[in-house]
Order: sequence, then structure tokens, then C-alpha cells
Amino acid sequence: MAVLCLAVAGVAQAKEPVDLDMVSRIRQEALHRSQVMATFGHLTEEIGPRLTNSPSMAQANAWARSKFGEWGLSNVRDEAFDDFGRGWAFRSASVEMLAPRAMSLRAVPKAWTPGTDGPVEGEAIAVNFKTKADLDKYKGKLKGKVVLLSEAREYKPGTDPDSKRYDEAGLTDLLAFTVPKDAKPDERKERADKYLERQELSQAINRFLVDEGAIAALSISGWDNGVVRVGGGGSRRAGEPVGVPELAVAAEHYNPLLRALDRKQPVRLRIDVDAGFTSESNDPGYNTLAEIRGNGKADEVVMIGAHMDSWHAGTGAADNAAGVAVMMEAMRILKAVGAKPHRTIRVALWSGEEQGLIGSSAYVAKHLADYPATTDPEQKKLPRSMRERTGPLQRKSDYDKFAAYFNLDNGSGRIRGIYAQENLAAMPIFEAWMAPFNDIGATVVTNRNTGSTDHIPFDRVGLPGFQFVQDGLDYFSNVHHSDLDTYDHAAPEDLKQAAAVIASFAYHAAMREQKLPRKPLLED
Amino acid sequence: MAVLCLAVAGVAQAKEPVDLDMVSRIRQEALHRSQVMATFGHLTEEIGPRLTNSPSMAQANAWARSKFGEWGLSNVRDEAFDDFGRGWAFRSASVEMLAPRAMSLRAVPKAWTPGTDGPVEGEAIAVNFKTKADLDKYKGKLKGKVVLLSEAREYKPGTDPDSKRYDEAGLTDLLAFTVPKDAKPDERKERADKYLERQELSQAINRFLVDEGAIAALSISGWDNGVVRVGGGGSRRAGEPVGVPELAVAAEHYNPLLRALDRKQPVRLRIDVDAGFTSESNDPGYNTLAEIRGNGKADEVVMIGAHMDSWHAGTGAADNAAGVAVMMEAMRILKAVGAKPHRTIRVALWSGEEQGLIGSSAYVAKHLADYPATTDPEQKKLPRSMRERTGPLQRKSDYDKFAAYFNLDNGSGRIRGIYAQENLAAMPIFEAWMAPFNDIGATVVTNRNTGSTDHIPFDRVGLPGFQFVQDGLDYFSNVHHSDLDTYDHAAPEDLKQAAAVIASFAYHAAMREQKLPRKPLLED
Ligand SMILES: [Zn+2]
Ligand SMILES: [Zn+2]
Repeated sequence: MAVLCLAVAGVAQAKEPVDLDMVSRIRQEALHRSQVMATFGHLTEEIGPRLTNSPSMAQANAWARSKFGEWGLSNVRDEAFDDFGRGWAFRSASVEMLAPRAMSLRAVPKAWTPGTDGPVEGEAIAVNFKTKADLDKYKGKLKGKVVLLSEAREYKPGTDPDSKRYDEAGLTDLLAFTVPKDAKPDERKERADKYLERQELSQAINRFLVDEGAIAALSISGWDNGVVRVGGGGSRRAGEPVGVPELAVAAEHYNPLLRALDRKQPVRLRIDVDAGFTSESNDPGYNTLAEIRGNGKADEVVMIGAHMDSWHAGTGAADNAAGVAVMMEAMRILKAVGAKPHRTIRVALWSGEEQGLIGSSAYVAKHLADYPATTDPEQKKLPRSMRERTGPLQRKSDYDKFAAYFNLDNGSGRIRGIYAQENLAAMPIFEAWMAPFNDIGATVVTNRNTGSTDHIPFDRVGLPGFQFVQDGLDYFSNVHHSDLDTYDHAAPEDLKQAAAVIASFAYHAAMREQKLPRKPLLED
Repeated sequence: MAVLCLAVAGVAQAKEPVDLDMVSRIRQEALHRSQVMATFGHLTEEIGPRLTNSPSMAQANAWARSKFGEWGLSNVRDEAFDDFGRGWAFRSASVEMLAPRAMSLRAVPKAWTPGTDGPVEGEAIAVNFKTKADLDKYKGKLKGKVVLLSEAREYKPGTDPDSKRYDEAGLTDLLAFTVPKDAKPDERKERADKYLERQELSQAINRFLVDEGAIAALSISGWDNGVVRVGGGGSRRAGEPVGVPELAVAAEHYNPLLRALDRKQPVRLRIDVDAGFTSESNDPGYNTLAEIRGNGKADEVVMIGAHMDSWHAGTGAADNAAGVAVMMEAMRILKAVGAKPHRTIRVALWSGEEQGLIGSSAYVAKHLADYPATTDPEQKKLPRSMRERTGPLQRKSDYDKFAAYFNLDNGSGRIRGIYAQENLAAMPIFEAWMAPFNDIGATVVTNRNTGSTDHIPFDRVGLPGFQFVQDGLDYFSNVHHSDLDTYDHAAPEDLKQAAAVIASFAYHAAMREQKLPRKPLLED
């Protein structure tokens, strides 16, 4: 593994201290007295999928609080973030083709679309809605129909293994950094315009399908091999059009519907969706928080976290009961080994991650730093991350007290390293902390950035926020946001390993003489 | 490709003639005016799965006859083989977990098990039925219950690609022949005993579940990743116990049921299976046959064939609408190019293949050669292929007139070569015939044997019967006997190529001065 340390070997520095006695205790507890699979099993199989603001998400928040209490953590609480939207729950769905022949279709409703209130039957019609102007062509044609929204998609043979782990070459590759191209001048505006256009089109479609009396809509799953990959549709926002019952259908079952219509054969479908909204207002969402209070530097905070919310097709296992179970386990381990950290160690189980890092962004804005609120009504339509900056960053009083945030949300795979997010001064520290875990696969400190999850709200206000490098397993081939995101696809050994690494990182970040170094804030 | 011919290069022989003008015409028709996908689509998507003796199998027989008539083939007919069993059809199935939480389970009924006559509800109970003695332990415990027959199975990460094609190294490997080990002295008897023991146990279980008042039974799918792989259960034989409604459940949905029971949580299920028997007697099965009558040597016969029956979870696409569509297309091509073969070319679309090569075995026994019928009642319980030989082979009058049989049933992948079944004298002939298809991937003539499909009944009576080497694609990773065995997983180019190769092989076998050489018959 020596080669992996060369990237920063030229920088002279004092050796970062590592408390190997504590690491030993953490490893013993994590590897030999693990409770991570019990936690993971409870979240995935007893509670099940945890869509933000669904009843099962509330159940997960409550259960996590009770476990934290049981383990002796302090300041256990849910913290609200305003105005997320409505709750929605899904119990069952069946889609049967009745003609031209009998066939059961694998289908899962999109979140925040209505149920059917018992079985409904109708003929399928294929549409092509690329722009709002396209809708007019179908006026008067959709009454009583099941609308097929997607085009056919050709099957792609799987020529890569489903499950992947890093090999030495892949780990070494991670040490190379790509110097970025200049951003195009209007990139941010273009992206925002596209986003608004798509939003408007989907709302127009939702309204049109209801107005025209369509009984349901089907679209194709994003993946092949019978996997149903599905997120949200309709709208979670009270007052917005939710459209008709809409389901994603396995590709192998969707394409034949279009082929039958191409042959001019009427396709008759019976659809029965037991799903629906569980509240009528734009309710707040809730992050669950708890901590081990520091000794001596209790007002300085190290955070670890993962998102507890999930999509609903599977049981939100790799995404992200795995991360939650590991973070909960890390806290349990620290209590079990009698850790007395100087700084406070706080765990956050975020909500609203899948809808755009909403819970973690709200936490950072409330406690750490935020940009002034926009007054432009056009800007207000955009998610926070797409808005133009309105002025200089406004730092809250806790900003200076913040030490570091560590996140886990790249599936259920083992920790192989950490993304330093170009914080070069943090790299030798991480290398020292990672050394006692080299033998169980955690080796790489890369200066690369990674995005798309809850360390980003910290990172973009200039605070040290990090996500670990994880073995991919079948995260991006089979399970991400799909009905295969279930308990069985996780490896217990990987979750145990991750809990050990994270407990130790949190402990060392809380004991270090200085808080973690920060990189310069890029205000744009 | 030259290297692939070395294996037989040392044998001096006259050059095998190839009619390149005819090959050109066949390739033009096969590659540029193909109808193979229309045939494949009709079988899989308009007719659907074709369980032996099901109504859709009868529909497929009738449709194939009508196409053969349309294409101008002669002697188009169904030929019965006696005493197959009952018909069965499956329309839809739903399995819902109601407690400990709501979840839809992916499940497909086993063929020849009863439906539910509307939804039934009950609690799950796990059983362990390894021997008949185990049944007693569950006496009085199964009333109103859903019986979980399988143990949990750990998920195996997929570390090989789903879809495979031969590379040069793989093709070269095929040229190596493994000298067989001596068979163990009682091998045949041991296999037969095991078979009868399994049969008895499964009949005892069927009877027990009904007697005890269980409402349904679930077992685990043979494959992971949500794929439901399922064959037969119950019994197709009139008079035998069919048991209770029994379904195979996706592994990711089956394992959680056992884990919930392990946690002592009652698991409540609602099951609704619309499936059932379509006849009450041991009806004959039907092979569909048709031919291009020979000129000059009309009483000598070249046969090509594939099985039209399938399992019912998918649409029997790779197994084996692909083979049927290719064989039908080969006959269409031969008519379209105006081929006037000297020998008769006969196509056979077999039935009962999935239950043990029943249709093709019956054909061979009736027309070509058979062993004397057994009178031992114990032997009669065994499928034909497991019985002790009762005496010397009895050759029928057509035996000497038979030229060759070519089969396709290793999925929908392209033809890469042919298994010569240790018929060394056939190898240089095949190499010559294959040469004009080297450029589209058909190159290898291996002396290896391959089994498990309808060339075997010919081969085991000493007649030249062959199966082609095909690219595996995702046959043994995803589609074989599973609900993913559907239209989309086939590559049109591969089916076109196969039809060209087979039309040409059939033509050359019909035009060759001599019939194909035969290998010595191993009577055991
Ligand atoms: Zn996630
Ligand atoms: Zn087959």
C-alpha cells in the first residue's frame, strides 16, 4: 500500500497521532460484537422502505431515537426542516395484461402518484410527449385509456460483471486528479432553464391526463433484466397536479405492449394500485440527531451522517439503510468502548436526501452557514443548489466551531478510502487515521471530489465534509433506486468494516488538537 | 480461423463439395429478406409461453402448420405421442405480504399446480421436508397455513458478465476432448433410485399438504436478482396428487419471510393464483412436422428441429422460440430460393422436451429405432432415458434411410460451430459446409458431445444427430426457464445467421452423394 501514500509524501509535517489502543478497542467491538446487521435488518425488513414524510420514515425516526436512547446518547431529537411536502405510502400494485393475451406485468408506482381505488381497466395508447405542444395532438383521445409514456428501449446485453470491487489498479487510478475544464459562461442558467422546462412539462402532462380522463399511465423502468427502477412522479407538493396513477414497468414487460400496438392489436390492461397520500399539507421533514457530548471542547462538533429516507421500490437497503446502520453502529461502538471525546460527536440521519439533499442542506443553512434568501420568484422555483448566489456567505456562530463531517452513501460496499475534496492539508491526517484499517481494505486517500450526497452542503460552504470511497458491488448495476435494493444484496463484513473505520475517524477528529484544516471557499 | 481446422487436417480425403451458388442465395434470403423475427415475435408475444399440452401450445402447433402451408411445404401435420398428461394454463398470480408489513412478492406458480379460486389468506410456516419421515413432525400444524418449503439462500454477487460470447480462446478450447472416466458400476441404478425417491417424496408432500389443509406453498427461485426461475410442480399425470397452489418466489422476497419468522413475527400472506388444469386425462402431446419432398431420393430424410414447448414464467423465447423460429425460417428460405433437394428435408417442432425429450424420443422410437418395451413395473416408473436396456436395438424400416438430424436449443445466441458427437468422419464434411459462414462467426467443428436436448434420441440409437455450438449470451445467467426468457433478450442478427447456417446444412445434407457417416453404436 506504500505506493498509495506517495501523492503527499513530499509535504513535510509532524506525524499525525493515532490512538492505537482506542483503534484496537473499536475494531474489537465493530468486528467481533457487531450489531450492524440487526440495525440494518430492522430498518429494511421490519420498517421497510422509508420515503421522506411517509409513515414508515416517521417510524424509522422514532426507532432510531429509541435505539440512541438505549445506547446512552445525549440530546436525541428530531429536527424539522420546513415545507417538504406531503407523505405518501405504497402497499401493493398489480398490472395485468388481459388482451391480446394474459400476462402479469412487473410494475411499481411512482412516488406521489395517486392509487386507483380498486381495479380499473382500459386500453393502452402510446403517446409521444416531448413538449407541451405535443399534448394537443392527443386531445379527446385518452378518455378511459392507459397511457404509455415511454418509447421502447432496446435490451443491452450485460457485458460487465454485476458486482464490482476495487482492485489495486482501480485504487491507484483514484490518485489521479483531472484538472477541470472552464465552466461554460451560461452553464448554471442553462441547467436551471432546463430544469424549469422539465418541471413545467411534467406538470402540464399531469394536468392533461386528468383533464382528458386517462385512467393510468405507464413508463419503462430505467434498467433491464426485470429490475424496476423508479423514483417520484405526480407531485409531493400540496396544490400541484398529481396526475393519474403512474407506474414504472419492467422493460421486458413494457416493450411488448408497444409491439402489440405496432401490430394494431388492442392491448387491454387491468391496474390496481393501493397507494396514496398520507397527508394533505406541505409538512416539514425530520432529521434525527443524537450525540456523545464532548469533554473540554464540547461546543466544537464532529458530525457523522447518512440519509435515512429512501425510494420505495425495494427496502432502501444499500441506499441507504447501509449508511444509517453503519453510522448508528459507529455511535454504539464509541459508547460501548467508553470513548470520552474532547469534541462533541453528533450523528445525523438525514431526510429528504433523495429529493435533493434537502434535510442536510437545511441543517447546514440553519446551524452553519447560508446565502441570503432570494426574493426573485423565478429563482424560488429552483432547488437551493441551482439558484444564483444572492450575496456573500453568511456564517452562523457554530461555523467556526465545526470540526468535520463524514458521510456514507455510496451503497453497502466496504470502505476503500476517502475523497479529500481537494483539501490537501487533510490528506496526511486521513492517511494516518486510515493506516490501522489498511489490512481490512481501507487504503486510499484521494484528493478527488465526489458529489451527489449529504457531505456536499458542508463542502459548498467551505466546511470539511467528506464521503468515503466504497466498493461498488451491484449498486449501479442492480440496486440503486430499484426493487432489488434489499437486505440480501449487502455483505455483513463490509458493514462491520465501515462501522469500525467511521467510529475511529470520528473519534480521532474529536480528539485531534486542532479542528480539521479547511480548504479555501470558492464563492462564485 | 485456419487453426481451428488443424484437428482433422491429417486425414486424407476427397474435398467435400459445397454449392456456393446455393449458399449465396440462402445467405441473401436469410440475411437480407429475413422473416425470423416476425416468426419469433409471433411465438413469444402473440402466442406466449407454450407449456406442453397447454392451450397456447396447441395454438402454436396450429399456427406453425398454417405458416408451413403458406410457405408451400408438404405433408404438414401434427403427430401425436401418447399419454403425455394434462394441460395446464397460467394467467396471473399475486402474493402479498400483509404482515409484518405490506410488500408485493414476485412469484410465479409451478406448472401443474392448482390455482386458488380467488384470494386466500393465511400465516406462513417454515418446514423442513428432507425425507418422508420429516412430514410427521408437522402433522396438525399446517391447517390454513402457507408452507415455506425452501431454506433461505445467501445472495451470490455476480462477478461474471451476464452475457457471454465465445472469444478465440474459448473457441479453441472446444477442440480439446476429455477422455471419459470409467462409469461407476451402479451409476445408472443409483440415478434411477434417486429419481424414484425424489418422485415419491414430492408426491408424499403433495398429498400431505392437501390432507393437512395447507392453503398454499412457496419455494425460493433458483436464481438471484429478482429473477423467478420455475418449472413444474404438482403433477401433470391424471390420478396423481397435485398438492396445493405452489409458487416460486424471487429470492430477495423469499428470504425476508424466513427472517421474519426467525424474529418470531407472524407473517401473513394473501395469495391469488389464476391458473389450473385445462384437461382431466393423460392426453397425447403433439409434434408438428412438415417437409420439402426430395427429388430422386425422397425416401431418404434429413431432419432439422427444435422444441416448441416451453416453461411458462417468461415467453419461452430463448428456450426455445428462438430455435423454432430459426428452423421455420430455414424451411422458408429453402422454399424461397427454390431449393430442389434430392433427399426429403423434414422439420420437426417437438413437444414435451422440457419434461425429458418426450416428443423427439417418441418420434425416434416410432419411426427409426427403439429398444423392446420393458415389462418391469419398477422400470416403467422411470423416464425412458433412465431405464435399463431390455434387449438389442430394434431398427425400423426408416432407420437405414435416415441421413441426419440438426437441432438448435442452446438459447438464442449465434451459431459458432457444431458438436460432432465423436463422429469423426462427419467432421471434415461439417468443416466444408461451415466455411462459407466463417465470416459470420460459425467456425468450430468439435468432436465433443453435448446433451440435454432433442438430438440425443437420434444419437443414442446410432443415428447422426447434432446440436450446434451457440454463443451463450445470458442463457445460463438470466433467461433459462425464468421469467426473463422474453423477446427482448434475443439478438435479431444472431437468429438470421443461424437460419442461414441451418438452411445450408440441411440442403447440403440432402444433396450429398452419400448420407452422413454414422459412428459405431454403443449398446450398453
Ligand atoms: Zn442515497
Ligand atoms: Zn430447451
